[in-house]
Amino acid sequence: MGVVVDGCPSGLPLSEADFQEELDRRIPAEPKIVSARIEKDSAKILSGVFNGYTTGAPIAVMVENKETKSSDYEGIKDLPRPGHSDYPARIRYGGFNDYRGGGRFSGRVTVAIILAGTIAKKLLGRYNIDVLAYTTAIGKVKTDKAFSTAEIRKNRYAAATRCPDLECAQKMEEAIVAAKRSDNSLGGIVECIALNMPPGVGDPLFDTLDGDLSKAIFAVPAVKGVEFGVGFKTAALMGSENNDAFLMKGGKVVTVTENAGGILGGLSSGMPVVIRVAIKPTPSIGKAQKTVNLSSMKDAELSVKGRHDPCVVPKAVPAIEAAVAMTLADHLIRGGIIPKILREH
Amino acid sequence: MGVVVDGCPSGLPLSEADFQEELDRRIPAEPKIVSARIEKDSAKILSGVFNGYTTGAPIAVMVENKETKSSDYEGIKDLPRPGHSDYPARIRYGGFNDYRGGGRFSGRVTVAIILAGTIAKKLLGRYNIDVLAYTTAIGKVKTDKAFSTAEIRKNRYAAATRCPDLECAQKMEEAIVAAKRSDNSLGGIVECIALNMPPGVGDPLFDTLDGDLSKAIFAVPAVKGVEFGVGFKTAALMGSENNDAFLMKGGKVVTVTENAGGILGGLSSGMPVVIRVAIKPTPSIGKAQKTVNLSSMKDAELSVKGRHDPCVVPKAVPAIEAAVAMTLADHLIRGGIIPKILREH
Amino acid sequence: MGVVVDGCPSGLPLSEADFQEELDRRIPAEPKIVSARIEKDSAKILSGVFNGYTTGAPIAVMVENKETKSSDYEGIKDLPRPGHSDYPARIRYGGFNDYRGGGRFSGRVTVAIILAGTIAKKLLGRYNIDVLAYTTAIGKVKTDKAFSTAEIRKNRYAAATRCPDLECAQKMEEAIVAAKRSDNSLGGIVECIALNMPPGVGDPLFDTLDGDLSKAIFAVPAVKGVEFGVGFKTAALMGSENNDAFLMKGGKVVTVTENAGGILGGLSSGMPVVIRVAIKPTPSIGKAQKTVNLSSMKDAELSVKGRHDPCVVPKAVPAIEAAVAMTLADHLIRGGIIPKILREH
Amino acid sequence: MGVVVDGCPSGLPLSEADFQEELDRRIPAEPKIVSARIEKDSAKILSGVFNGYTTGAPIAVMVENKETKSSDYEGIKDLPRPGHSDYPARIRYGGFNDYRGGGRFSGRVTVAIILAGTIAKKLLGRYNIDVLAYTTAIGKVKTDKAFSTAEIRKNRYAAATRCPDLECAQKMEEAIVAAKRSDNSLGGIVECIALNMPPGVGDPLFDTLDGDLSKAIFAVPAVKGVEFGVGFKTAALMGSENNDAFLMKGGKVVTVTENAGGILGGLSSGMPVVIRVAIKPTPSIGKAQKTVNLSSMKDAELSVKGRHDPCVVPKAVPAIEAAVAMTLADHLIRGGIIPKILREH
Repeated sequence: MGVVVDGCPSGLPLSEADFQEELDRRIPAEPKIVSARIEKDSAKILSGVFNGYTTGAPIAVMVENKETKSSDYEGIKDLPRPGHSDYPARIRYGGFNDYRGGGRFSGRVTVAIILAGTIAKKLLGRYNIDVLAYTTAIGKVKTDKAFSTAEIRKNRYAAATRCPDLECAQKMEEAIVAAKRSDNSLGGIVECIALNMPPGVGDPLFDTLDGDLSKAIFAVPAVKGVEFGVGFKTAALMGSENNDAFLMKGGKVVTVTENAGGILGGLSSGMPVVIRVAIKPTPSIGKAQKTVNLSSMKDAELSVKGRHDPCVVPKAVPAIEAAVAMTLADHLIRGGIIPKILREH
Repeated sequence: MGVVVDGCPSGLPLSEADFQEELDRRIPAEPKIVSARIEKDSAKILSGVFNGYTTGAPIAVMVENKETKSSDYEGIKDLPRPGHSDYPARIRYGGFNDYRGGGRFSGRVTVAIILAGTIAKKLLGRYNIDVLAYTTAIGKVKTDKAFSTAEIRKNRYAAATRCPDLECAQKMEEAIVAAKRSDNSLGGIVECIALNMPPGVGDPLFDTLDGDLSKAIFAVPAVKGVEFGVGFKTAALMGSENNDAFLMKGGKVVTVTENAGGILGGLSSGMPVVIRVAIKPTPSIGKAQKTVNLSSMKDAELSVKGRHDPCVVPKAVPAIEAAVAMTLADHLIRGGIIPKILREH
Repeated sequence: MGVVVDGCPSGLPLSEADFQEELDRRIPAEPKIVSARIEKDSAKILSGVFNGYTTGAPIAVMVENKETKSSDYEGIKDLPRPGHSDYPARIRYGGFNDYRGGGRFSGRVTVAIILAGTIAKKLLGRYNIDVLAYTTAIGKVKTDKAFSTAEIRKNRYAAATRCPDLECAQKMEEAIVAAKRSDNSLGGIVECIALNMPPGVGDPLFDTLDGDLSKAIFAVPAVKGVEFGVGFKTAALMGSENNDAFLMKGGKVVTVTENAGGILGGLSSGMPVVIRVAIKPTPSIGKAQKTVNLSSMKDAELSVKGRHDPCVVPKAVPAIEAAVAMTLADHLIRGGIIPKILREH
Repeated sequence: MGVVVDGCPSGLPLSEADFQEELDRRIPAEPKIVSARIEKDSAKILSGVFNGYTTGAPIAVMVENKETKSSDYEGIKDLPRPGHSDYPARIRYGGFNDYRGGGRFSGRVTVAIILAGTIAKKLLGRYNIDVLAYTTAIGKVKTDKAFSTAEIRKNRYAAATRCPDLECAQKMEEAIVAAKRSDNSLGGIVECIALNMPPGVGDPLFDTLDGDLSKAIFAVPAVKGVEFGVGFKTAALMGSENNDAFLMKGGKVVTVTENAGGILGGLSSGMPVVIRVAIKPTPSIGKAQKTVNLSSMKDAELSVKGRHDPCVVPKAVPAIEAAVAMTLADHLIRGGIIPKILREH
């Protein structure tokens, strides 16, 4: 699993250790809620870094698969998993695609997204821009707490389920354990905020900041919906309720409310960017399901064996942070706000 | 207002009349629910069509503005409208942007989106692929009816509010009239389905079909959320409830349920594509609002005069159809499923 | 004929008059050496300019065709002109392409290139970067004079043939008149220099400055070769002869010789960029030529009637300036050297 | 050194052995004419191939550097080599670039180009399209022989200098040995032909086949000029001499002469594509040269030590084949002529 990041300015301090923290965040410490795979990943920088700084050349980073049991997948290659990409992928690639574990469609691609996002987050950090994702719902368990930024910063990786409401996090964990026990799976909601984005970043129409953010977020497997600010709730509000009134505060233009989620007309407004993402339950479940046999073209039944996460939401949290960070960094570079050479160290 | 469409295959019959129907759909016949502007638009093809067929060259199409009263906007150029792009656009372009009516950020850009979409829809029509959008909610009025494809086809443009549930449509119209009367505005929900998409169209990760669809849909002004299939509801379902079981039907692979919204792993599944879109209430309202004066950098108050739609949802319906059609056509061309030359007429 | 330029910074003063000078340069005042067409072109700005400055939105500019006699072309639509794109264009577009005058393959597309280049040249002018093209050979007549920058600036548009060696220019004109009289045509060589490019602009490998310049120059019809600095002569030089030694001059790094043509490793070196371009003789000639009939698929003969330039080199001069200017401006914008907003007026 | 190739159809047989032949071609067997480095390269496929066939996913291929002596370069990091990219690269990346051996600007990047080209050549081979490059001049030694396709195929890799005129090849070798002995270097000319390209491939204006070919060829280090067909000689021909008359031959449209080099109007004509490329002498030479010290900003002298090829032309031959093959494959895929899935094996 690897990634090539082109367009990163030269002069950014970067080391393999930078990737480790993010990769570790992908795997919750609590073994009960993840698959039995031993996936301690470590990154190797192949290019683009010299004497501890990015050179301006493409940065290639790789994580080697420590453990692969292809045999887990051979038996089911003609039986597409309901809810998974197996069937359309087979059509798309004429059957030449690597079907083991879903290949490129596997949840494991979040590793590559996180590698790229690590670079983006370091870059944004130079500009004091923070991207913070966390879980707000797992299955039917959800938190309605409004988190302070401090709480998010402190707690978002504290619990295995990545919910900063630690009490609720415990219930989420129990829900996942229960789902696993019944050979079933759960989805959830991930929220992501980006702080300190300057206003006026983005482009109207076909390069909007919200459009690009949502496109990047849909690269994270299992995402089924993306909304900004009050999101779908906006539909039931009146203009006077939904509009965020401007006011001057400490010499800066701010808004009283934050319904827009930090984006107006495809451009950042200078207020926190707020994104909410729907994650579907893991399609691979032990429970018996109806499917078809693509070789005999007859109805069939499938019970997915092997090690599967009963809930991918915790792994989606750093991946969504990464997807958001990449997009913001990209727009800041394109907009000339982040320069091509980072001079001050 | 114009658009240039590149990459359309040669050999597609196309005339200015083709654009008229779509442009007319943008303006509901019912004058009570739209702004007082007389916007009877007509398209002029500038290039890319010869002897009634597309040539394979870029297609430039233009709609001239019949009526522009710039004076409507001069008074408020330093007072950014809450909820509108005025403020970030001013930062983005250093004040050089055309602020009249929001310029490129105006809802009027839906005209350009619809022009491009008209070509895409004609192209998809050759492959029997239909894109149908319609309103399901305006403000707090919503329909819970499950529409048949026949009903959608027949009724989606029957009511001024573009809701195929004609009884509900009447209530929506009343809600809009009431909002207008109180100098306020309403948002809503638009649903869009695409029928007969072949399976296996799209690309994983950074060119997913859902990612590209959502990016295109966010080009439509006022969109704040996009979801596929059951969308955000997926978060509360278990894997066994959410997964769409496959079965053989008439020699074809289909699914029993349609929770995935026709997309799996970023590729079309062969089932109907189902998208739901949140539209915010028009930010320009007559009601007094708090804002700031960007010249004096002091707090100010604003009451937007002039002609503004109390609800942009009806105009968003053909624009969303267009955005979806463009994206599907693009992926079908890139995937080699729609060829470069359309030979049979 | 029109063009859409996206990515131009906001704040650049731009008016329709700016285009006129460049469009006029395309048509030599001397009627003997050009076709009889009356092509007094004038540009109309359709978008992207407001109150005399670019807004940052796409700039659409159009030139209307004053005179088109399509009948000139009807008779020969099945007889591809030797040396022209007629035959491959018919294959490429399945016969749907606009064959009149070569359609998009006509030399008239230089109008669109010049429109785009006008904007780029104005932008470069803000940074004191000058792009100057001129003729050095027409057919067998060529100048071996080394022109000073002052001579180029003063004389490059003085003669109808755009050769700054005015004596030689006269002989070139005679050669064109003679070719025209014998129903034949001539090619030539155009040289282009860019002054005051800062060093370090470009990207290695697949976005080199020389690669992008050559790609843009090949967009100008009739180009068959592009070389930089000493160009093909480099092949016979030894390293010690070809290498441009560095030295300090007035606190700046310069080179003693200028063999490299201002580009090293795909990046600008800070020395003048020097490009030489081979232009083929106009393929449309009155002389009888062997061809095939693409309808009957039999051998045929063709004598091209109508108004054709006996030599396109003079029209290529501003088009090559434009292609070079566009590419340089593009790289300077991408490199962050030209900012997104031009603040000082 | 590695490369990621995206967009290759699924179903192409591919193995690490396929790369070996091309990599070996890069290093002439005759040690006298190359640098003393031991560069036996071998390729490792990291992704995109499964069960012996391409999967449709990005293909990552890597060659590990067996031997690197960075110490060779430390001493000269402030002394830019005349004729090399050292100086502009330092500006471009603010000094953060990897200066060892020129880093990304090193001739060694031809390894990556050749890796990508190997895949393209295999793909083109399925369609009987052959890309053949060979040397026609080294320094002042050149062959004027017109080679038959059979001779090119048989002899282009027979001599260390890659000239199919084996007698001339011997003299070229002697010239290189003499240049090396005098601490100097040589350039040369490489010709490349592509056989069996179907007509009508390419796009007018900004995606011309010749423009894209030249851009890709300029990615090969040391290229200073690119011409098609008769190239710069076209400038002195009359239209009646330069135009290639069409005629029917065996039911196919062909041309009598081949001056156009297989490209008309940016599209392939169906005749052999003929490209000629100027390669400059290696800038790194042992001879003392004037340069500047970029740290002290004073004049300096430099004599490049270490192992450098006295002539890079032989290594450029497979790199130019690769660059041409990539571009043709890319246009054939984009044009829908090579499909997304290669079904027949």
